[in-house]
Amino acid sequence: MASYLVTGASRGLGLALVSRLATLPATEVGKIIATARSDNSHKLKEIVNASPGRVEWVRLDVTDQKSALEAASEVEGKLHGRGLDYLINNAGLMDYSPTGVEGMDNLNEIFHTNVTSVHTVTQAFLPLLRQGDKKTIVNISSTVGTFAKAEDFRVAPTPAYKVSKAALNMLTVQYAQQYETEGFTVLAVSPGWLRTDLGSSRADLPVEVGAEKVVDIMQKTGPPQNGKLINIHVPGWENAPGPNQYPGGEAAW
Amino acid sequence: MASYLVTGASRGLGLALVSRLATLPATEVGKIIATARSDNSHKLKEIVNASPGRVEWVRLDVTDQKSALEAASEVEGKLHGRGLDYLINNAGLMDYSPTGVEGMDNLNEIFHTNVTSVHTVTQAFLPLLRQGDKKTIVNISSTVGTFAKAEDFRVAPTPAYKVSKAALNMLTVQYAQQYETEGFTVLAVSPGWLRTDLGSSRADLPVEVGAEKVVDIMQKTGPPQNGKLINIHVPGWENAPGPNQYPGGEAAW
Repeated sequence: MASYLVTGASRGLGLALVSRLATLPATEVGKIIATARSDNSHKLKEIVNASPGRVEWVRLDVTDQKSALEAASEVEGKLHGRGLDYLINNAGLMDYSPTGVEGMDNLNEIFHTNVTSVHTVTQAFLPLLRQGDKKTIVNISSTVGTFAKAEDFRVAPTPAYKVSKAALNMLTVQYAQQYETEGFTVLAVSPGWLRTDLGSSRADLPVEVGAEKVVDIMQKTGPPQNGKLINIHVPGWENAPGPNQYPGGEAAW
Repeated sequence: MASYLVTGASRGLGLALVSRLATLPATEVGKIIATARSDNSHKLKEIVNASPGRVEWVRLDVTDQKSALEAASEVEGKLHGRGLDYLINNAGLMDYSPTGVEGMDNLNEIFHTNVTSVHTVTQAFLPLLRQGDKKTIVNISSTVGTFAKAEDFRVAPTPAYKVSKAALNMLTVQYAQQYETEGFTVLAVSPGWLRTDLGSSRADLPVEVGAEKVVDIMQKTGPPQNGKLINIHVPGWENAPGPNQYPGGEAAW
């Protein structure tokens, strides 16, 4: 009966992850903390109201260290002396720059949200994670930010996002190396190109599929995945044109 | 008779690169622009004074877009209607965090200097580079920021530097992809662990060796190196204990 915390849970993949986790039996999934900058998500409120005491909302602006420390303190109270098992750093931004790097004017902002905030939030929750059984940190990343797939994703007009995800992947490796001896598993997960506000309606997969596959990965995760980037596995995509983007398993950096 | 601009030229590798370039015949190396935040480097002044009209100092704070645009305008005047052939983005910072990621409190600052500033400076000099014959952008990076060498460099207490160099490498790939059709060559170069203020006195190589090897790489660089990370080649290091850190050629990301 593990506890989970998901950042950026007001919409998109974060909301879908909370929704998916809430469908799983209480023998597997205990407390689910859904964090967001504000409480204006009606969809998240519905999930919270449908699972009283199980799914709980906590305010957390991931870009703000003070907010992260306050959220950690509030979550500590909600866990009643138990640790946090899974921290899912999902909150993130994507740029859209049709002129590529030439029009890229938000590199610091995207980096702060997608990388520095993961560091800030993880440090804030580290004491609770140390008390948890699973000690698992999942950073939602993307193969779009890998050197191995740079040619495949050349046309994607999101240079700052690509740079930030390469950086997040390296941050994941740093965390994996540092906390390995304490029994932590720190991994990056590529959830696929999902139909969300971030991914657009032209994306490959419904967000529910991405969420289900990410939860599948988390539930099978342990020390062998420490410091790795894990891709989702979507059967059938091996027959799609071009390289199979969703083969599952470890993805190359 | 190519023109060169080196950022961060007041000391360390930047100063050594200017010094090395100034020793080469005028048939190969023409104007050398040495930029730095301030003019307080006596060593740089000596080089400028020894090569009047050939090595010139221009004020440039790479972290400041306004300064980059002013520097580009000043350099335009100094080139007398000719373009800039080589831009060497050398200015950079390294963190020192003996407690690893736990003590890392300067990720945004390191990223701004090591990555965003490269973008800012390159955009400012792009019009002059487009007028140049060589159209070459060299980003001074490091194999310390590669996933391939993450295990080798695990003990290096510089997590923010590693994250920033992984990000710089991905920025290099973005630039390489974008400007390839215009005839640009954009590459990252790993200059080795050098005895500078940044590298410390315990480093592998004298800074002059790193500078010589980086200049060697630049002079052989063309479209086949576009979008690559190139390592220096130092004969003899294949016999050192551990993996050969200086084998030359393309380094894995």
